[in-house]
Amino acid sequence: MNNQKLLIIKIGGNSIDNKFELAQFLETIATINTPFILVHGGGKLATDLAEKLNIPQQLIDGRRITDAETIKIATMVYAGYINKNIVALLQKNNKNSLGLSGADANLIKTTKRIHPTIDYGFVGDLNAESVNTDFLENIINFGLTPVVNAITHDGNGLLLNTNADSIANALAVSLSSKYEVSLLYCFEKKGVLLDPSNDDSVIKTLNHQQYEQLKNDGTISKGMLPKLDNCFNALQNGVSAIGILKATNLLGFLNKTTHEYTTIIE
Amino acid sequence: MNNQKLLIIKIGGNSIDNKFELAQFLETIATINTPFILVHGGGKLATDLAEKLNIPQQLIDGRRITDAETIKIATMVYAGYINKNIVALLQKNNKNSLGLSGADANLIKTTKRIHPTIDYGFVGDLNAESVNTDFLENIINFGLTPVVNAITHDGNGLLLNTNADSIANALAVSLSSKYEVSLLYCFEKKGVLLDPSNDDSVIKTLNHQQYEQLKNDGTISKGMLPKLDNCFNALQNGVSAIGILKATNLLGFLNKTTHEYTTIIE
Repeated sequence: MNNQKLLIIKIGGNSIDNKFELAQFLETIATINTPFILVHGGGKLATDLAEKLNIPQQLIDGRRITDAETIKIATMVYAGYINKNIVALLQKNNKNSLGLSGADANLIKTTKRIHPTIDYGFVGDLNAESVNTDFLENIINFGLTPVVNAITHDGNGLLLNTNADSIANALAVSLSSKYEVSLLYCFEKKGVLLDPSNDDSVIKTLNHQQYEQLKNDGTISKGMLPKLDNCFNALQNGVSAIGILKATNLLGFLNKTTHEYTTIIE
Repeated sequence: MNNQKLLIIKIGGNSIDNKFELAQFLETIATINTPFILVHGGGKLATDLAEKLNIPQQLIDGRRITDAETIKIATMVYAGYINKNIVALLQKNNKNSLGLSGADANLIKTTKRIHPTIDYGFVGDLNAESVNTDFLENIINFGLTPVVNAITHDGNGLLLNTNADSIANALAVSLSSKYEVSLLYCFEKKGVLLDPSNDDSVIKTLNHQQYEQLKNDGTISKGMLPKLDNCFNALQNGVSAIGILKATNLLGFLNKTTHEYTTIIE
């Protein structure tokens, strides 16, 4: 349907925590000629800062409870420190980029999560309609690379912490109406592993049926489930291709010189 | 020369520190129909955070020494917390806005300050050529209100702390090639005061000759000098009108229902 290619590249926390690795990664992606959007999560920095400020952090089912002090910290670290450092480093590598929270240009509007028993605090849930795709198209046409962090807003003045994988997913799905989108989740592993203790047990392709099987027999671990649910959702909603791969393998993946990655297929 | 009007509105630290006052101010400026750019400084928040984290702050001649830890804090607070909260509150008031540091879209490139005797640290100095005016024009044409913070970059990966008054000045001067620009410095006083202890001693108009006189006889106090030097510089470089006024008087100034403000003339 759409011929112009667009990559949505998500980098995980581990790639952000290591300063040297992050600089390397940004130097690498600055060489990509296909237009792309970079989506980043938070890493350990927010937790470290909360600790230094004696603000206790609470996790329920792997999700951070975001109280009033924690959303302040998340906003400072994700939308401030990490986002601006990534942009400055991309500029250094001559990739003109633009850092964005979900509040900027009304890019991503979310709804504060309501849960019957757990108060998640300032956490925002989104859907494909949350995204201001016209603005992104304008920015990309202007030659800019959007760098999107995990802070969104509710349109009523509240900033909300949002899962960065879900943001990448929503961007990919919504932009499929304008582009041929590939969604690439970059993290510290080579792909989805059959055996989490063996880094070389990469599943080359994973379809929905296999996924259900591996989920049921417990092969695929808890942390991967929301990411993979996002992937299959994206595939069913117009995204052309989805890869899960090691950050340092991204260029090899794009140049087709590595085969160590997981492709999600229907 | 240019017929399209543009306002550059600078708000000072005191207006930012008071949450209620800031919300009021943003509600007010959201009603302005003329396109504008909002420039904001830092306020006490960065100092408070540095204190909580036991990072000592040093000032020389009213200028903050920005060491490695302090630029981190400034980036978190100015580009993160303050900038995104302002954007979210403008969105709440249906003013679609876009938060920007100088690194974003290569908006403001500065040079790390070199001083023969004082190491100011991560401080950037700018000039009118520092500003990416084409990007701002594109954003304004798209219907967005830019919200600019005081963090800039050197194009080589460094983030630098920059005086927000000087940023407002550079934006005003450089955009005078595209717009009829009014530069408005909003702060806690009603204008430039003849007697700093008397809030009602507002100087209605101030020309360069009067300024030199008041500077020489010590009437105009230290803190106002860089601001006023910026103003006369802007006026000599294409900016159409300059006002110094109380933040809460901004709408009255624009509607011409108040006469309590200082206008800078040649």
